[in-house]
Amino acid sequence: MTGMYELATAVRRVGDGRFEADVQPGWDIGGNANGGYLLGIAGRAMAEAVGRPPLTVTAHYLAPAPAGPCRVDVQVVRSGRRLATATASLWQGDRQIMQLLGTFGEQQPAFEGEVPYIVGAPPVMPSFEESTAPPPLPDGEVPAIFGKLGIRMRPGDAGFRDGVKSGRAEIGGWFSFADERPVDAIGLLFVADSFPPPVFNTDHPVAWVPTVELTVHVRGVPAPGPLRCEFRSRFIQAGLLEEDGEIWDSTDHLVAQSRQLALVPRPS
Amino acid sequence: MTGMYELATAVRRVGDGRFEADVQPGWDIGGNANGGYLLGIAGRAMAEAVGRPPLTVTAHYLAPAPAGPCRVDVQVVRSGRRLATATASLWQGDRQIMQLLGTFGEQQPAFEGEVPYIVGAPPVMPSFEESTAPPPLPDGEVPAIFGKLGIRMRPGDAGFRDGVKSGRAEIGGWFSFADERPVDAIGLLFVADSFPPPVFNTDHPVAWVPTVELTVHVRGVPAPGPLRCEFRSRFIQAGLLEEDGEIWDSTDHLVAQSRQLALVPRPS
Repeated sequence: MTGMYELATAVRRVGDGRFEADVQPGWDIGGNANGGYLLGIAGRAMAEAVGRPPLTVTAHYLAPAPAGPCRVDVQVVRSGRRLATATASLWQGDRQIMQLLGTFGEQQPAFEGEVPYIVGAPPVMPSFEESTAPPPLPDGEVPAIFGKLGIRMRPGDAGFRDGVKSGRAEIGGWFSFADERPVDAIGLLFVADSFPPPVFNTDHPVAWVPTVELTVHVRGVPAPGPLRCEFRSRFIQAGLLEEDGEIWDSTDHLVAQSRQLALVPRPS
Repeated sequence: MTGMYELATAVRRVGDGRFEADVQPGWDIGGNANGGYLLGIAGRAMAEAVGRPPLTVTAHYLAPAPAGPCRVDVQVVRSGRRLATATASLWQGDRQIMQLLGTFGEQQPAFEGEVPYIVGAPPVMPSFEESTAPPPLPDGEVPAIFGKLGIRMRPGDAGFRDGVKSGRAEIGGWFSFADERPVDAIGLLFVADSFPPPVFNTDHPVAWVPTVELTVHVRGVPAPGPLRCEFRSRFIQAGLLEEDGEIWDSTDHLVAQSRQLALVPRPS
């Protein structure tokens, strides 16, 4: 059985380093495909081109993408014993949507005697069942993408549409696909951009937060079960913010870190 | 008067998007040029190609670089009203040293009425004069690069060569160029990789930490005076670590954030 995310990010190799794919409807917010979903498509093409899963992928977003066909051109920069590096561009017709750069390689098992150094822990949250579905958009619409995901937010972080902002630029929550398929490294690329922007929980008068650049570090292979995520912005200043994410699996292992730089448009 | 860092990272345009430069001796650790210094060369070429300073630049490191001539090939991906995106590769002969992707644009002034949201503060440290010069290498050598920099480390973070490790993967300190030239956006690219790896302050038996990928977000224009920096690793596991940096100016503004993914080689 192929999962809905695998289907929605499937790529077809049509030439040396050339892939075709479809930006599917229903993975958008307000008509523009989610940035993490697009990263899933491009990252899958890059991973197929180099034959390894992603370790660190950076995407720069150039234009929004509606549903429709796209192509990904991948150029392998170097393919070594452990690591491979590639660049890629994602296009719809003659409009470039993204430019990417990534290094790929299998996760290594811990070596004998290795003592991990970990400062941090999964976010503290109520159970999946006691957490809150993401709020609808300001116009009341519930995006179709929510139906594809089992996202549940920490209740105190989920009231920003009802005027109940936490005052902290933080959003924690649970992630799974609605079909409960396991999340692999290509899935983690999507998870990193699947929650509402934490800035919505501050008084900053911002309605949308266009991503300039998103980098995801894959730090482990997730064990089965819902993931716990925490997204946070610490510096919202002079028209820019960063958003950091941590993704933890059901065995309390950090499986990904993400950071994006986004524009904070001036209120109009 | 041109500063020594500007001279050491100078690039000469030799064609459309083609630059030549020299990896200068004395900006290395053990014969291989510092990664932040190389990022300074490549970032300067990219900035000149697009005519704007860097906002976010990602470099993937493919091979170490000895002193000697290099070239940087820059390809402008998009040049818009506010932002420009470019890729680049840095070569020595037919050996590729780095692959890069960045978005460039002027820092925006805060808009009227904007209230910055800031969670964080400059690292708490003794004065520049009361802080500690970086320790020599394990073989006792004092790298020539230290003579070019006014780096002073938080005293408790600087004893790792003498067997006095703090136990925390943290290194704080002051940064300036020895010639006290102001640090601009191209300079910040270097600062982000100018301190010893924080992992040296843990019991992890690691002697070198090759960078896979380094991303620097430029978040402001530094005011004159030494910068305060804090570098930290929080997850050292299964052969990989991340290293996060914050760089603050003399007026307590965050001027850059950095994150790198690095390999933790197994002890041999």
